[in-house]
Amino acid sequence: MNSDTVHLELSAVKTLALAALLNAGCNKANATAIANTVWKAERDGCSSHGLFRIPGYCRSLKNGKVNGEAEPRLERTAPSVLWVDGDGGYTPLALETMADDFAELTKSQGVAVAAITNTFHFAAMWPEVEELAKRGLCAIACTSYKPCIPPAGGTKPLFGTNPLAFAWPRPDNDPLVFDQASAMMARGDIMIHARDGVPLPDGAGIDKHGNPTNDANAVLEGAQLPFGGYKGAAIAMMIELLAGPLIGEQLSLEAAENDLEEGGPTRGGEFVLAMDPKKTRQTPITGGNAERLFEAIAAQEGARLPGVGRIERRKKVAEEGVRIPRSLLEEIEV
Amino acid sequence: MNSDTVHLELSAVKTLALAALLNAGCNKANATAIANTVWKAERDGCSSHGLFRIPGYCRSLKNGKVNGEAEPRLERTAPSVLWVDGDGGYTPLALETMADDFAELTKSQGVAVAAITNTFHFAAMWPEVEELAKRGLCAIACTSYKPCIPPAGGTKPLFGTNPLAFAWPRPDNDPLVFDQASAMMARGDIMIHARDGVPLPDGAGIDKHGNPTNDANAVLEGAQLPFGGYKGAAIAMMIELLAGPLIGEQLSLEAAENDLEEGGPTRGGEFVLAMDPKKTRQTPITGGNAERLFEAIAAQEGARLPGVGRIERRKKVAEEGVRIPRSLLEEIEV
Repeated sequence: MNSDTVHLELSAVKTLALAALLNAGCNKANATAIANTVWKAERDGCSSHGLFRIPGYCRSLKNGKVNGEAEPRLERTAPSVLWVDGDGGYTPLALETMADDFAELTKSQGVAVAAITNTFHFAAMWPEVEELAKRGLCAIACTSYKPCIPPAGGTKPLFGTNPLAFAWPRPDNDPLVFDQASAMMARGDIMIHARDGVPLPDGAGIDKHGNPTNDANAVLEGAQLPFGGYKGAAIAMMIELLAGPLIGEQLSLEAAENDLEEGGPTRGGEFVLAMDPKKTRQTPITGGNAERLFEAIAAQEGARLPGVGRIERRKKVAEEGVRIPRSLLEEIEV
Repeated sequence: MNSDTVHLELSAVKTLALAALLNAGCNKANATAIANTVWKAERDGCSSHGLFRIPGYCRSLKNGKVNGEAEPRLERTAPSVLWVDGDGGYTPLALETMADDFAELTKSQGVAVAAITNTFHFAAMWPEVEELAKRGLCAIACTSYKPCIPPAGGTKPLFGTNPLAFAWPRPDNDPLVFDQASAMMARGDIMIHARDGVPLPDGAGIDKHGNPTNDANAVLEGAQLPFGGYKGAAIAMMIELLAGPLIGEQLSLEAAENDLEEGGPTRGGEFVLAMDPKKTRQTPITGGNAERLFEAIAAQEGARLPGVGRIERRKKVAEEGVRIPRSLLEEIEV
């Protein structure tokens, strides 16, 4: 197996990603923002959102679907709403452009929404909510994709995989962070299973005829199932509305209609909500100590805090670097 | 079975609730607000949040835990945050008191948070999010309770049942609304199963030794399980933080420590978020038509829109009235 993989230092991940993106037609600002995002995924041991995505990023730049020279533009459409026009580029530069303004807005208003539109989303969202939590804010982010999950009771894909990311600030610790697809499994993980020929766990999806299957390729052609039955489907629907109609961006079904279907991301939006606990709470009331909750989770046998695994992987990768398939390295054109 | 139940016109539900609450020491403003809330539950065919709760409401008034003469107070702690001190009363009057101000604040700011604190929460939340959606807003509400659900991997109750309610405005239709516990089943439904001696479905909970069981009483003494495994547990944890530490109210574990344990509600908060789609979206981008999503859901065989069942039950109850157990009627002191 090791002969089929290549070892990379973590710094080399960024260099490689940057070179490939510049080669595919990105300008430096966009390429740097995307390479940072890919680097963060590899740094945190999440290969499905790391270099694995570079060929897709590059394909959609080369065919002109995504604007590699995007100049994101910010507009305050209401006192607590920061509307972002991503200029048809990938999402990372839009996020980088808004980061300071959005955090300041949240701190002054108590709560704020960032409505990121006209971008192509191809990344995990924990880095942006973690960054907001490092600034003392509670943050929620979500995005849609194209139809992957049926509504409750149905069998045809309608909602995207529709991840939800959440972060809570901790004074003396890394923020508490989770980032989970509304699908039982992240689509990126299913793509990895398909690539490697590994069967899926039960409940991950159905084939195009609506029958349960463990075949990753059959699920990619059929439908992914939500976590937790009809309640998970309701979460997926809520995310579909927040990351689409609420901010004026496409539904997953609309995104699919307007996509080139070349395997890259679809045009869509990202909904980001942030709140400043210093403004949403008052002192007279007793209780409300989040750290007690975290201690009580960690104290239970078998339980651990969400995100702890990511922090552990981050330390491990920092020491050991990453291994990627040789075939992937060969596919990345620099 | 019919001889053990009593038929009531819907209007009689409100009269009965009001009389019982006044008898238990509520003033008129509080009693009316609570009776309206109980009436809405029965109106929508949700007996677990209807008259079934009146004995609990009254018990906690009579023993002095809850303030029946509460005068909720509003404070703008930040430009987009409405902080509510419920004065130790039940939540309905706090919600009624803030309703107009909060909707106006959301429309002017684009997004707003209502931090409802120092109240006792004993009701479903769809009425308040539905009301906000009728005013053209997208709304999310959540609350915690006392420990019912273990963290992922654990077996001891830590999170409340932690419901999440969501509503989306529809121009020519009732708002789309869902209100779902983070527990696989609502605790009220488990209490009804326990009362009636009906076994629970698989996956609803574990006994106090951590073993799966279908016995409702054993689950009430043990722990309820979240919907969707670790992802549902993450949702429960997020709600615990939003309805507690974010707004400066108690965690479920803190609420239990400070409760009389007489079967009534615990002191806690409610987090309400509202957003005005007129402010969060801009017109230049194409797509984002929520009605297309709803049509696509309804068009799938076997699927239907969340909340449609509630609207159907509402029509049925309006025609037929409600039936309640004779034992419950006898328990309600007026």
